Amino acid sequence: MTRIAICAPGKRLEREHADAVIDLAADRPGVELVFHRQCFARHGHFAGDDAVRLAALLECADDPAFDAIWFAHGGYGSNRIAADAVARMGPAARDKAFLGYSDTGYLLAALYKAGVGRPAHGPMVADIRREGGAAAVGRALDWLCGDAGGLEGSLDERPAAAFNLMTLAMLCGTDLMPDLAGHVVMVEEVSEHLYAVDRLFFHITQHLAGIAGLKLGRITDIPENDRPFGASEEDIARHWCARAGIPYLGFADIGHDGANRIVPFGLARAPGRA
Amino acid sequence: MTRIAICAPGKRLEREHADAVIDLAADRPGVELVFHRQCFARHGHFAGDDAVRLAALLECADDPAFDAIWFAHGGYGSNRIAADAVARMGPAARDKAFLGYSDTGYLLAALYKAGVGRPAHGPMVADIRREGGAAAVGRALDWLCGDAGGLEGSLDERPAAAFNLMTLAMLCGTDLMPDLAGHVVMVEEVSEHLYAVDRLFFHITQHLAGIAGLKLGRITDIPENDRPFGASEEDIARHWCARAGIPYLGFADIGHDGANRIVPFGLARAPGRA
Repeated sequence: MTRIAICAPGKRLEREHADAVIDLAADRPGVELVFHRQCFARHGHFAGDDAVRLAALLECADDPAFDAIWFAHGGYGSNRIAADAVARMGPAARDKAFLGYSDTGYLLAALYKAGVGRPAHGPMVADIRREGGAAAVGRALDWLCGDAGGLEGSLDERPAAAFNLMTLAMLCGTDLMPDLAGHVVMVEEVSEHLYAVDRLFFHITQHLAGIAGLKLGRITDIPENDRPFGASEEDIARHWCARAGIPYLGFADIGHDGANRIVPFGLARAPGRA
Repeated sequence: MTRIAICAPGKRLEREHADAVIDLAADRPGVELVFHRQCFARHGHFAGDDAVRLAALLECADDPAFDAIWFAHGGYGSNRIAADAVARMGPAARDKAFLGYSDTGYLLAALYKAGVGRPAHGPMVADIRREGGAAAVGRALDWLCGDAGGLEGSLDERPAAAFNLMTLAMLCGTDLMPDLAGHVVMVEEVSEHLYAVDRLFFHITQHLAGIAGLKLGRITDIPENDRPFGASEEDIARHWCARAGIPYLGFADIGHDGANRIVPFGLARAPGRA
């Protein structure tokens, strides 16, 4: 039995999305999903205020009955609690898998930096709402139960990490940022203009000296602008990687979509109970 | 006579905006405005490609006939040429005033870091299109001609710097970023959600250790979100300053509007010909 705790470090989860995932997991006798009530809390932009979100995350992480923490949703807010959360986590958090992406990348980064748990970039509960969402959620559950079938296809003997591009840009230079020297770093983005993607690449490439290389995930839902940018997202990635002396390694199979595959931080290994 | 060269390091200037500023300056016999033809060039998102924008900026900066460089417009793109521009500028650039804000903050930062010219944060040519634009342009021209009347009112004996919040966030940790220890740093923003403002404050406050304090300019045109953020922009500034141990110093009279006042980088002094 794999027992998975679910909490929401940023945005609130809708009940209907939780119910859909519960239905989907019902035919998996080896999985138990436990939704922390904090998933459904409301406080302005967030699923509860900072104290409520922090407490829920710590309850899940520090409970030895759980094998994994699965983040419910992204949105915004995990950066506000990540440093405190990782500093306070006890020994029960040490071998747990932590799965999420987008805004929860702040937590994945902080966990990885501190050597706490096994953070991985991949689908969340709220992805059930997307086209291909059932497959995304199934991929996440498979991985949380020890199946490596959903891993990003290009992972190799080099350590890796994956991030939302904006999240990585905001992490750079902060106390949450892990050392990514020697890592293959994958980035994806959603709902940003290409000029903003260019600006973010300017920023991150200056902070990523020493990485093994950069891979470009999907850049989706780019808003229409009043004039074309004049370069593709791959042109942008190649331009800034070249300027910073970072090897550009091609595409990564990650994104804000149902096809988003799983990238464990560090060296890929199936989670399974320790 | 004050001779002012105008170029566009990011976005193209509209002819009608140039004409309106020429009309406005016509009754100032002590001012000559020279618009570089590059202001009106087009290349995708930009007023000419990187090489064209860089060459125009260098022509203006290196021509000893000009007393000042006035940036035509913000938009996006000055970060792509700032390092090369400052590295190549010759001795004629050394005593010139450079006036702009928003995206041109990358150039102001790089100039200040390199000790080239007298960069200042203030109205640009394209501000003529705004409500209060004639006053903004007049304030800029007054300052470029040596009148200190348009300076931000709180400037004191401490060195200062002012930035668009996103621009400062993207500058942090890059090779364009000056040392702001001991400075009063002012930030303003436009067209960003409050959650994005919060995210940017998280980032910048971790990079600004040692500054004298932070002042909050206007945060305008905040897009409507699907839920209220739950805190004001001043709550946000206070929160992150407190977490980072940075004194929060109240409001600054800067913003993407006609009232935007002038903040010379370093110690305020009227430009006048050297």
